[in-house]
Amino acid sequence: MNNNIIKNLTFLKSALADEGSFISTTEVINWLVKRNKAVNVKISKIKFKDLIGWSFSEGNYNLKHNSGNFFSIDGIKVETNYGNLSEWKQPIINQPEIGYLGFITKEFDGILHFLVQAKIEPGNLNNVQLSPTLQATRSNYSQVHKGKAPRYLEYFRDRNRCTILLDQLQSEQGARFLHKRNRNIILKTEEYIKIHDDFIWLTLGQIKKLIQYDNLVNMDTRTVISGIPFGSFTSRTIDFFRAIDKNRVSPIGEAMLESALKNDKALMSIDEIIAWFTDLKCKFDLKLTKISLSDIDDWIIDDFEIRHKNNKFFKVIATDVEICNREVAKWMQPLIQPAQEGLIAFIVKKINGVFHFLIQAKLECGNFDVLEMAPTVQCLTGNYRQTADGELPFLKTVLNAKKDNIIFDTLQSEEGGRFYHEQNRNLLIKVSDDFNELIPINYCWMTLNQLHSFLKYNNYLNIQARSLISAISFI
Amino acid sequence: MNNNIIKNLTFLKSALADEGSFISTTEVINWLVKRNKAVNVKISKIKFKDLIGWSFSEGNYNLKHNSGNFFSIDGIKVETNYGNLSEWKQPIINQPEIGYLGFITKEFDGILHFLVQAKIEPGNLNNVQLSPTLQATRSNYSQVHKGKAPRYLEYFRDRNRCTILLDQLQSEQGARFLHKRNRNIILKTEEYIKIHDDFIWLTLGQIKKLIQYDNLVNMDTRTVISGIPFGSFTSRTIDFFRAIDKNRVSPIGEAMLESALKNDKALMSIDEIIAWFTDLKCKFDLKLTKISLSDIDDWIIDDFEIRHKNNKFFKVIATDVEICNREVAKWMQPLIQPAQEGLIAFIVKKINGVFHFLIQAKLECGNFDVLEMAPTVQCLTGNYRQTADGELPFLKTVLNAKKDNIIFDTLQSEEGGRFYHEQNRNLLIKVSDDFNELIPINYCWMTLNQLHSFLKYNNYLNIQARSLISAISFI
Repeated sequence: MNNNIIKNLTFLKSALADEGSFISTTEVINWLVKRNKAVNVKISKIKFKDLIGWSFSEGNYNLKHNSGNFFSIDGIKVETNYGNLSEWKQPIINQPEIGYLGFITKEFDGILHFLVQAKIEPGNLNNVQLSPTLQATRSNYSQVHKGKAPRYLEYFRDRNRCTILLDQLQSEQGARFLHKRNRNIILKTEEYIKIHDDFIWLTLGQIKKLIQYDNLVNMDTRTVISGIPFGSFTSRTIDFFRAIDKNRVSPIGEAMLESALKNDKALMSIDEIIAWFTDLKCKFDLKLTKISLSDIDDWIIDDFEIRHKNNKFFKVIATDVEICNREVAKWMQPLIQPAQEGLIAFIVKKINGVFHFLIQAKLECGNFDVLEMAPTVQCLTGNYRQTADGELPFLKTVLNAKKDNIIFDTLQSEEGGRFYHEQNRNLLIKVSDDFNELIPINYCWMTLNQLHSFLKYNNYLNIQARSLISAISFI
Repeated sequence: MNNNIIKNLTFLKSALADEGSFISTTEVINWLVKRNKAVNVKISKIKFKDLIGWSFSEGNYNLKHNSGNFFSIDGIKVETNYGNLSEWKQPIINQPEIGYLGFITKEFDGILHFLVQAKIEPGNLNNVQLSPTLQATRSNYSQVHKGKAPRYLEYFRDRNRCTILLDQLQSEQGARFLHKRNRNIILKTEEYIKIHDDFIWLTLGQIKKLIQYDNLVNMDTRTVISGIPFGSFTSRTIDFFRAIDKNRVSPIGEAMLESALKNDKALMSIDEIIAWFTDLKCKFDLKLTKISLSDIDDWIIDDFEIRHKNNKFFKVIATDVEICNREVAKWMQPLIQPAQEGLIAFIVKKINGVFHFLIQAKLECGNFDVLEMAPTVQCLTGNYRQTADGELPFLKTVLNAKKDNIIFDTLQSEEGGRFYHEQNRNLLIKVSDDFNELIPINYCWMTLNQLHSFLKYNNYLNIQARSLISAISFI
């Protein structure tokens, strides 16, 4: 058996383990409630002029940290032939530094466990969420600034210390970030690992079960685990399935598993999907020009906020953060506050007997490479966006789904280090056999295995698609 | 048998056909000689001020066409932590428009044939080279400017007319072009095709044989055919091999074929290679700033040229072009003239009994995504670039290779529409079993099948690597 198959099986076994060796899923939830009670997060909206360390550059060109580090809020003009709006201007987060999101994993009782941290972020709705072992900036990671190293950094810095199970570059929200990418890493160790406060070992199955609840698992955890592939359907895999307890796998989970494992039943081949995507990438233009924040039409900079005149989309706010935990931490930073909740949904349908996901090729202004593969529906709620032809494609199908056809429906948070109380409704909707397979040209049916294939290569799947994929459980 | 396997077999059969149904390879060479004699290309170097339609913008910011179309010569400042030079300035070609390079193919006598054009480009060393059926700009392709449509465009514009065998986005030279990409397309038709003057049908095997000669097959043809994958090693493929004439496959060709077909003997898995590449992409920075051509240190703009003060690298020249063929065509344009020949080489070695290619992760200033996978050695000849540790890695191995270990050694042209008499020495060198497998961190051993896998996804393999791959023949 080659290393890759062993790795896929290791991930699969962990995904099928609904309980871990250390803490039950129910106990994790209780522990999070307790941790949340023990912590007090105070966010006060302040004036930009009182935001120590941050300032608007000359002529309000952008809002940035005086050190030049962290991120800045820039203005951009967007020109495109995608969608109804051919030109607009908006603020965008410019954070050129790559973020590092990493898990240490280790086998206990033959099952891979992930070292998860209960982490507080200022923008989190519920203060504490489950995050990867390591969340660091590249500066932290390479320790160019001297300072306290993040916990467990030493395992990540030396590439020969652990086995690298996954190391990918992945995008962030293209409507909010300019070309931002994170590095997603999973390491496996056989060393003894000292467990610090707020860290616990969970199986992949447990993490996926916890994503079935609202806002327990943070975005960073979700993006890293979304990248885990489960490989090919080989005779060895079948043997393995025969060996596991069949009762553990749910009927829908078994169907998802079939879609996750490579088989010959995909509607289109990978080459055909690449041809589809190339055609669209060549069809659509995306031109960005940096402009001053003051030159963004319809947006207002006042003492407290940078906001749209009709309070649409999002606003940039200045905040004073105080977190009282075991120690007290205080700092100031800008945060992005959304105007309303978002909705993201995949429609899945059995084609050739295997679940296929309806993917949208979507252009967002901050995309690194014009288009990324997005959920079937991705929009803001409240004022559902209208298209020229009327309603957003497939929105009705998603909103009117019968209860039996809803595989999951939860609220999930965006990254609390940048976004203030931002959450998206995550939906996975099953449609029946008579659902029309004919779809608009910028949509495509793919199996879960195919999605995992594209996910490996950078800048194919957007963060919303990855969030939904992370929530797919086999148990 | 699914469509993808059928497609791979179709390509494979064509690659193994050393002669086509219409014209022998020897006749093609004679025909090209004749075509070359019938044509007279006159390139005169003129002053920039006499270059009608082109001008330097205010303060020599850039050199551009007055219509804003075609391309411009811009100045850039490059900052990077890759290599010895942390900062430099240079001119670069800025051509935001995607180029379309497409072949129509059709089966004759059960073998796929490619419709090839003998095409004249002003910068070609030998005037006429074999090019794809269609070379067009996106404006040509979408016919936004009214004008004479390129031959056979109609087959490419309607995506339902033919079967799409391949449709990929691929990069151009990162040292010369800013983020430039081309669309590489292969269509298959069953329609009757009218053959215009200067077009012929060739098998893939014939094209690959013609690449064994100097400067017969142009860069555009080479990039498109480099993207052709040959698939997985299945029992059906084995049956197919049993059926073909074994004498046709050369011993080295058979070994190459084994490397091209998926097997379990690759040193590293695709996931491991992605992890290696992610680590390097995160390690190296590439920051570009646009500057005026006048602000490029050490470069001189005189009446005739934009050149380095020591005449290194390349120069931008103004030319008056006159092509006398059946009709006379005249126009003026800037061309890029290299200071010396380039050298590109792959080292290949049998590891686990299968040929592995030694790949370099290389940063070039115009790369779309920091690094691309490049040949083992890629440099300018004349003054071979020195590294801090002395000589360029593996250069000696390549230059001192024994005759028996040279799989091919030819001169191949760059695109004659932009480059004046530019050619690179293309080498494929076999090394023995005792060649050290331990390599610098930015090098990696991959099978040909793995290279084809990465080639499918955009901006992984650079154009030099693809040129070498296109020359790999199985017969």
